[in-house]
Amino acid sequence: MRPSGRNLDELRPISIETGVTAHAEGSCLIKCGNTHVLCTASLEERVPPFLKNTGLGWVTAEYGMLPRATHTRMRREAAAGKQSGRTQEIQRLIGRSLRAGIDRVALGERQITVDCDVIQADGGTRCASITGGWVALRLAVNKLMAAGDVLSDPITDHVAAISCGVYAGQPVLDLDYPEDSEAGTDANFVMTGSAQMIEVQASAEGATFSRDQFAELLSLAEKGVSELVAAQAKAIA
Amino acid sequence: MRPSGRNLDELRPISIETGVTAHAEGSCLIKCGNTHVLCTASLEERVPPFLKNTGLGWVTAEYGMLPRATHTRMRREAAAGKQSGRTQEIQRLIGRSLRAGIDRVALGERQITVDCDVIQADGGTRCASITGGWVALRLAVNKLMAAGDVLSDPITDHVAAISCGVYAGQPVLDLDYPEDSEAGTDANFVMTGSAQMIEVQASAEGATFSRDQFAELLSLAEKGVSELVAAQAKAIA
Amino acid sequence: MRPSGRNLDELRPISIETGVTAHAEGSCLIKCGNTHVLCTASLEERVPPFLKNTGLGWVTAEYGMLPRATHTRMRREAAAGKQSGRTQEIQRLIGRSLRAGIDRVALGERQITVDCDVIQADGGTRCASITGGWVALRLAVNKLMAAGDVLSDPITDHVAAISCGVYAGQPVLDLDYPEDSEAGTDANFVMTGSAQMIEVQASAEGATFSRDQFAELLSLAEKGVSELVAAQAKAIA
Amino acid sequence: MRPSGRNLDELRPISIETGVTAHAEGSCLIKCGNTHVLCTASLEERVPPFLKNTGLGWVTAEYGMLPRATHTRMRREAAAGKQSGRTQEIQRLIGRSLRAGIDRVALGERQITVDCDVIQADGGTRCASITGGWVALRLAVNKLMAAGDVLSDPITDHVAAISCGVYAGQPVLDLDYPEDSEAGTDANFVMTGSAQMIEVQASAEGATFSRDQFAELLSLAEKGVSELVAAQAKAIA
Amino acid sequence: MRPSGRNLDELRPISIETGVTAHAEGSCLIKCGNTHVLCTASLEERVPPFLKNTGLGWVTAEYGMLPRATHTRMRREAAAGKQSGRTQEIQRLIGRSLRAGIDRVALGERQITVDCDVIQADGGTRCASITGGWVALRLAVNKLMAAGDVLSDPITDHVAAISCGVYAGQPVLDLDYPEDSEAGTDANFVMTGSAQMIEVQASAEGATFSRDQFAELLSLAEKGVSELVAAQAKAIA
Amino acid sequence: MRPSGRNLDELRPISIETGVTAHAEGSCLIKCGNTHVLCTASLEERVPPFLKNTGLGWVTAEYGMLPRATHTRMRREAAAGKQSGRTQEIQRLIGRSLRAGIDRVALGERQITVDCDVIQADGGTRCASITGGWVALRLAVNKLMAAGDVLSDPITDHVAAISCGVYAGQPVLDLDYPEDSEAGTDANFVMTGSAQMIEVQASAEGATFSRDQFAELLSLAEKGVSELVAAQAKAIA
Repeated sequence: MRPSGRNLDELRPISIETGVTAHAEGSCLIKCGNTHVLCTASLEERVPPFLKNTGLGWVTAEYGMLPRATHTRMRREAAAGKQSGRTQEIQRLIGRSLRAGIDRVALGERQITVDCDVIQADGGTRCASITGGWVALRLAVNKLMAAGDVLSDPITDHVAAISCGVYAGQPVLDLDYPEDSEAGTDANFVMTGSAQMIEVQASAEGATFSRDQFAELLSLAEKGVSELVAAQAKAIA
Repeated sequence: MRPSGRNLDELRPISIETGVTAHAEGSCLIKCGNTHVLCTASLEERVPPFLKNTGLGWVTAEYGMLPRATHTRMRREAAAGKQSGRTQEIQRLIGRSLRAGIDRVALGERQITVDCDVIQADGGTRCASITGGWVALRLAVNKLMAAGDVLSDPITDHVAAISCGVYAGQPVLDLDYPEDSEAGTDANFVMTGSAQMIEVQASAEGATFSRDQFAELLSLAEKGVSELVAAQAKAIA
Repeated sequence: MRPSGRNLDELRPISIETGVTAHAEGSCLIKCGNTHVLCTASLEERVPPFLKNTGLGWVTAEYGMLPRATHTRMRREAAAGKQSGRTQEIQRLIGRSLRAGIDRVALGERQITVDCDVIQADGGTRCASITGGWVALRLAVNKLMAAGDVLSDPITDHVAAISCGVYAGQPVLDLDYPEDSEAGTDANFVMTGSAQMIEVQASAEGATFSRDQFAELLSLAEKGVSELVAAQAKAIA
Repeated sequence: MRPSGRNLDELRPISIETGVTAHAEGSCLIKCGNTHVLCTASLEERVPPFLKNTGLGWVTAEYGMLPRATHTRMRREAAAGKQSGRTQEIQRLIGRSLRAGIDRVALGERQITVDCDVIQADGGTRCASITGGWVALRLAVNKLMAAGDVLSDPITDHVAAISCGVYAGQPVLDLDYPEDSEAGTDANFVMTGSAQMIEVQASAEGATFSRDQFAELLSLAEKGVSELVAAQAKAIA
Repeated sequence: MRPSGRNLDELRPISIETGVTAHAEGSCLIKCGNTHVLCTASLEERVPPFLKNTGLGWVTAEYGMLPRATHTRMRREAAAGKQSGRTQEIQRLIGRSLRAGIDRVALGERQITVDCDVIQADGGTRCASITGGWVALRLAVNKLMAAGDVLSDPITDHVAAISCGVYAGQPVLDLDYPEDSEAGTDANFVMTGSAQMIEVQASAEGATFSRDQFAELLSLAEKGVSELVAAQAKAIA
Repeated sequence: MRPSGRNLDELRPISIETGVTAHAEGSCLIKCGNTHVLCTASLEERVPPFLKNTGLGWVTAEYGMLPRATHTRMRREAAAGKQSGRTQEIQRLIGRSLRAGIDRVALGERQITVDCDVIQADGGTRCASITGGWVALRLAVNKLMAAGDVLSDPITDHVAAISCGVYAGQPVLDLDYPEDSEAGTDANFVMTGSAQMIEVQASAEGATFSRDQFAELLSLAEKGVSELVAAQAKAIA
């Protein structure tokens, strides 16, 4: 029934290749089916002004799409002179999500910026960015630990994200673009490795949804995130 | 236990005064405790370019805060030269929420812009904007119907929104600013008059949350929204 | 002869309600007929860079219009990404006018920002902003004095403003929108409580004006300002 | 008593050289003492959208300062990414002033843009821009008339402008920079060749002014403008 | 003597992988040593306004760098709100260069936009962008030809580019970042497959250069471009 | 054969008038035929942040065109809200070129900004800006030396620039606008007084060029620059 032929609760094939750029402290190329995101984590020994002299660290994120990551070419945001509302919303979500898995005292007064740049888009780019962004972050923090710059591990748990939705009346896991553009409801779940929730964003697109439907989406998400966490673990092993 | 002395499942006093500006097709001043939002609905006989000659109408929203709506003065966005990511995220949410209660075919090829301007802020401004924005929209549509410009009512149901959160370890309804700034989890629920869900946004702020905690927040929200819908009904009566 | 039926030298009904927002150090809602402006004065214990370590204070103003303050909806300046030339011109005028009634040495090295936001417009918004802005400023300064933060009153006199114009060939006081849009000449006078002039701005719109006509406008303005000053005095009593 | 040694009612030496650029339909370099402004009038056979198919023409103005027109270098507005409030205020004034001397029906549906670029500044740049801008406009209109593109002269009268102020307690004509920066009151008068008023802008800078003082400034301005009009007449002869 | 151990006239290893993104009409990932650029060509059946109804096509280019393509993270241009002067200069160069190898009549009234996004930077990104951009363009044009949308091949010749410079007093081919940052003279040559010149940009950085030195650089460039053209030919075979 | 009747290797008449503005430390008005550029050099006793405490000085340049410097009026960049890519490219070129003739150690920690504003354009504005900009710079440095603020002359040599091109199949010197808009190849050469090269920028416009053609252009440029250097020497004598 799904355009891709997947089962209702089946993720797209996932691959996470690490160490893909020479300069970043941590990096990976995550592929969730045809959605490909390059994630880099950049370490800086400074914090935003509001954290100066607090002893607390900061993790933030930026998100972008290459102009031809999509079916038709989109205008380059740098040329347009501003980031769209959608871009800002997504990068705020990525940043909040990753911070939820960080002990900012243990990190110490330094900042890690996670850049998520979509090379190719086929739905679910924000979730892939979070899942891949965590891997880049983990690798950068590993470097800090190996260098003895932090005393204990500032990462408290995995953070991963997946979309679910009601497609053709059925709750399905991990929407690709053909499903996403038709779905009645679209939800993104960000969770920890221990299945605690960090962010839930569910949105009726065309049809509202009931409490029961929402519970089904949540169950699918729990399954999906556990598989993503396993993929993260394998990538950083 | 709450700073305001309210019960865990108690809304702030709500008042919705309609017809507060002379020019708008629909308007109200909604007060949720000390959060005051002026909502206007402006009707235009044109649609955005992507809807030209489709027969479909459009409802959109814009959100703003007066500089001294808050405890300390914030920079005016018009002077800063752009709307913040937070502002854009909120106005996108208001627009999506209100569109979920509209039959765009019945509305016909015209646009209604709902402006939500926060006069005074004490937490929950996006939810008050949605609840009050719907009243302004309802009144503008009433004008269209009275003039015979639409054949059937384009409004399919009430739309209202409320925040809930985990404060001091307890799920509570309708966070005010002192609660919001301390809450471990913060969630916004947008629902219809028949308790269907339109938008759910839950965010861990400092502590993650479990599936059970989320269910408790949702139950509180159902109670809150039903009371808000009653207040809307009374206001437009 | 006037659309409103007023006498040539008759102000619109004026009301000034103080203390209308919880957070600002001073605030009022001024209504000059159907022109309604919310004025707040915000006190900050810092000054612009060019005044650092001079011992001098600063009073500045910002002006805005809600998008549907007008007959048809105007584009929100924050969304447009800049303040119009008209907005900047008006807020510069308000700031200069209010500073003319302030002893900046007595104020000491602190800044008061007066925000004037037009809720509903029917002509004369810049004059209402000055007249109401002074009331907000007065109340904020009262707080400073009550707290003993200033030794002598930094406010030297009332500041109020009124428009006059040549409408249908006749000099009239306090133009409303129907008059303003037809007037041959449009003038704004800012004066002190002792009838000294602070700002005069007169502009031919369609027809030039003579020295005699200008003198008649000035006499009308003196009458109008004296009534506004009385309304200010009553509001702050 | 004046820094320049001029009499209280004495203009600075004025020169108006016409035809200074090869491309513009009308142009002049006006020198009011050390204030030098290059004025060009550009004719376009189109009007702004709000005038399409009305048969009415439009005259508009833009104003700029070369970065080193002033004592110390100012930031280039093109590099800063926006025109300052002061620039916008001045160019709006120039445009309104020049339009007051134009019969827009006689001009027909075309636009003339007057650019006033300050090469060297020593006070009074907006007045010099208006006086010189009118000469450029006159020359461009002459071209239209010579070509038979307009049937009757769209220019109804001279337009010229001068500043006056209260300097060291004395009303003086045509403030230069040393006077302007010290003046208690600063006023700009735009008038026609027949001494009718187009714009009056008077501003207390430090000290308010009385009705009598204002009348003295106005008398000085009438004298000054009559001399400027004579200089214009000579330049275009 | 070179940091990389290369001979003075030796290119870095070059690889050009085609078909790297699913959506673009043409694409490649070009690697010149550690400089990696993703190039996509997007076809649109419209032209810029100045070419409407001329029968002529257009080729344009945009250039960007991922924030962590470089040793230390650079600010994202979309977040900064504008493209730097350097970015604009480079993308104008790429566009001009590619247009020099196009017959715009044969292309017909359509536009191809070549996006060059630097994934990893180690010197020579603008030259790699031109060389790779031409491959993406070639592939997109192949699609047009295969579909019968153009009658004759609009591509007239290869276009490729290489940098040369005076490093440690010696003319060397294909500067990498360590060389580029030390070079006394830096030159970029854009040439056709038949060794005709399209663009020459040579710049003294610290030391000026003589006519003889320039001739040596040009000879190196001819050798380098011939090798790049061979690599292009192999990639599209 | 040239539209102007000049010989193939003939410059336009050149005049350089110095001391044309009262405030700048150095200034000139350079006229290359009908191309007129006002150049000012402004001295500031501060350097950009990246040079603080290095003992090194800085020379930078900005470029602008008055809106009606051209045949038809161009939009004012300050009104458009940004400098075009062309403007940025040109001012970066001017700055690099002038720095190549400066000993930044001898200059000491101060900045000189050279502003080049085109009053009238007829081709070759960037070259005239460099040639005239050097004169303004020379005069400002002379002031520094006369005041004893520098110990040795920071200017190491003349810097001048000229365009050449292939027009109607012939290499010609110093393109004017009619030639420039038709030229198959357009090149700009920046050289020192001793004929060393600083910048070479050659660009095929419509037709590529051979190594031999390039050599001919370079020979023409050497002749032209030597004449410009003589004109500079005469102007500052």
